[in-house]
Amino acid sequence: MADTTTPAHTASGALDLGELHGSLTDPVLDAMNFLNEVVARFPEAISFAPGRPSEGTFEPEDLARHLRSYSDHLEQERGWSRDQVRTQLFQYGRTNGVIHDLIARTLANDEDIHVSPESVVVTTGCQEAMLLSLRALFARPEDTLLVSSPCYVGVTGAARLLDIAVRPVTEGAAGPDPDAILAAVREIRAEGGRPRALYVVPDFANPSGASMTVAARERLLEIAAQEDLLVLEDDPYGFFVREGSARPTLKALDRERRVLHLGSFSKTALPGARVGYVVADQEVVGPTGERTLLADQLSKIKSMTTVNTSAISQAVIGGLLVESGYRLREANAAAIDYYRGNLNALLAELERHFPAERRQELGVEWNRPDGGFFLVVRVPFVADTKALECSARAYGVLWTPMGDFYLDGGGDRQLRLSCSSLSMDEITEGIGRLAAFITDQAAEAAG
Amino acid sequence: MADTTTPAHTASGALDLGELHGSLTDPVLDAMNFLNEVVARFPEAISFAPGRPSEGTFEPEDLARHLRSYSDHLEQERGWSRDQVRTQLFQYGRTNGVIHDLIARTLANDEDIHVSPESVVVTTGCQEAMLLSLRALFARPEDTLLVSSPCYVGVTGAARLLDIAVRPVTEGAAGPDPDAILAAVREIRAEGGRPRALYVVPDFANPSGASMTVAARERLLEIAAQEDLLVLEDDPYGFFVREGSARPTLKALDRERRVLHLGSFSKTALPGARVGYVVADQEVVGPTGERTLLADQLSKIKSMTTVNTSAISQAVIGGLLVESGYRLREANAAAIDYYRGNLNALLAELERHFPAERRQELGVEWNRPDGGFFLVVRVPFVADTKALECSARAYGVLWTPMGDFYLDGGGDRQLRLSCSSLSMDEITEGIGRLAAFITDQAAEAAG
Repeated sequence: MADTTTPAHTASGALDLGELHGSLTDPVLDAMNFLNEVVARFPEAISFAPGRPSEGTFEPEDLARHLRSYSDHLEQERGWSRDQVRTQLFQYGRTNGVIHDLIARTLANDEDIHVSPESVVVTTGCQEAMLLSLRALFARPEDTLLVSSPCYVGVTGAARLLDIAVRPVTEGAAGPDPDAILAAVREIRAEGGRPRALYVVPDFANPSGASMTVAARERLLEIAAQEDLLVLEDDPYGFFVREGSARPTLKALDRERRVLHLGSFSKTALPGARVGYVVADQEVVGPTGERTLLADQLSKIKSMTTVNTSAISQAVIGGLLVESGYRLREANAAAIDYYRGNLNALLAELERHFPAERRQELGVEWNRPDGGFFLVVRVPFVADTKALECSARAYGVLWTPMGDFYLDGGGDRQLRLSCSSLSMDEITEGIGRLAAFITDQAAEAAG
Repeated sequence: MADTTTPAHTASGALDLGELHGSLTDPVLDAMNFLNEVVARFPEAISFAPGRPSEGTFEPEDLARHLRSYSDHLEQERGWSRDQVRTQLFQYGRTNGVIHDLIARTLANDEDIHVSPESVVVTTGCQEAMLLSLRALFARPEDTLLVSSPCYVGVTGAARLLDIAVRPVTEGAAGPDPDAILAAVREIRAEGGRPRALYVVPDFANPSGASMTVAARERLLEIAAQEDLLVLEDDPYGFFVREGSARPTLKALDRERRVLHLGSFSKTALPGARVGYVVADQEVVGPTGERTLLADQLSKIKSMTTVNTSAISQAVIGGLLVESGYRLREANAAAIDYYRGNLNALLAELERHFPAERRQELGVEWNRPDGGFFLVVRVPFVADTKALECSARAYGVLWTPMGDFYLDGGGDRQLRLSCSSLSMDEITEGIGRLAAFITDQAAEAAG
């Protein structure tokens, strides 16, 4: 094994961190790094920290089957020759992807989103979809991205890479608040900025677990049209309903092509494939009146970020879509039950350890999301990485400090719990440990 | 199939191309788009245009074998449990990749590059390696990227996405010229800029086919140390020697960690996997003196571009490396012979159609690269996309106009020929057609 490092290295040859891009010293990125470190240092702790999906019944051999399903689809349904299939799997491919049509078909079945395959850009995970969308839409220093706060760090981090101005808008109990967004849009404009787009997770948001009502979705689309604002809708958790029924995505309600719909197969298929997409069916008008789709413009950017998404990964996801009959929601029936069961168990265990009177006495509260992977617990002490370290070391339980998800401060007495990759026993045992930690910390804070 | 587009779309809802990011109206990106269009419009033409690798003996079933080889490696050589293997293939993974150690081992065998696995960042193709490197290193508006010109559009395009200033330095017959680079560094500094890094392809460059002598490599490293310049070395074609023997990469000669070595498996394994890497073993010193590797910093950026490289793609490439005994150069023996044969045939056919006297008379010349996929033909007429269209329509032969590779004008009477994915018969027939096209165009230009 070659692990000898190049020998002599002069002091002058070292790089100064302060001379590298500002994103590298951004507190949020540093916080996430530190968080990962803490989690890695306590592998034996029960972890409510990561939002990773359950591995369900996945087996490595499934990959070969999905690849075969995709090849068979090309040969049998499309009449491709074996040589064409070989080239598709081996070579450089279409920048915007080769399973765009299968994705469009699945979106029509699952989400009642009806778009042309040409408006679907297949990306290296949803993260690249964010990066491409932000790069295309943000041209000038005054262009501002609004985010519902607390906010998923993937989008604020991508904005930081591109030096894009970000304005957080505080979320309500029912998720992003259209009227607060409208007020922020007007404020930004009054300050000389240009509100360009809003990033929003309408269903079971990461980190808060909150969801928008259908009325709030409709109101948000009205505001977007009126204020010339685009909406970046990210919906990785929408399938995973605990209570009530699934609500229409913003894209399904979008009549004026105000919404870029960002999608991920990491929760509904497998994260290891790194396949996501963005639906960008907006029209773009060039200087001489020529019309293209925003997806065509994103293609130009994608050719300079990753050239195209792995043909092998696309074939795996493509095969999985073919096998599901282009109905991924149905294919996720067992996963939906599993996450529902876990979230219910998490809520029940919290209730068991902190019944109404007890939590009032301690100053502990939590929300009860209608689905997804996450909920937020409010505690009467500072829940930062230091507290996390104590929780891991002395109580054997991990969680995520909420402060990292707020750009404008706040959230320092909140912690995020994820239950997406734990067994029932781990949830029971873990919440027991967490309850002990919270109780002790609360007593210390009170004393 | 769902191909109904959302119906009503008001004129006011369309986006103005001029309001999107400037990269989208960059002439180079537009030129490449137009070029792809022309190529796509003439599928029956013999194409010397794309630099795509030969598909060799690849079969779709190989993917399943590579996946198995990688799983077996984890279970047998590392003693992993089946559950650990399953998680590795299914889940989110280490941001900087999971086959970094296999790559470091292969680099030691193939290139005499000895670096710690931790300095290797596995990327979604070499394009992402460029993007991450540029984003980390370029912090201020005055930071300037030098490129040897003519230049691969992947790097100038990535720089354009990040609004990085680029300075072309004209290449000589023996590739990038260290003294011209030194002069440019001083000029940039005199103008108030900060020369931050140089992008260079030392072996059989795309598009020129030119290579640096070993002396020029050593001189360039001296200049880099003296002028505090980093070198982004891109070496996708180094294995494919036609004449002479392989030369050491800049990284193999790098004693002061001045070189970031960018790598690709697209030419030596398969482009469909989209796996590349960057060796970034530079030390970075933080504000309180803490030391990290540049690779650790790139990891922060990668978490905001693609999160991590597809585990499935990495497993395919990892399996292929395992099967090769970590000696990819040897595994490429047949490919090396194939490309050598093709380039020799291309040169022989050009010579046959344009013997010395004839080419002097017409004003036609070409270079004779020692390896790689490309050579450049100088012609006595403007070889632009209009000429290409005529060549395709009337003569059935495609090539790439060189003008698109020059940032500062020039190259308008040059065309690039690639012979990497053609059969001998296609080369013979194609050069016959090209000779007719060149002869007719030269006569027209003379007349």
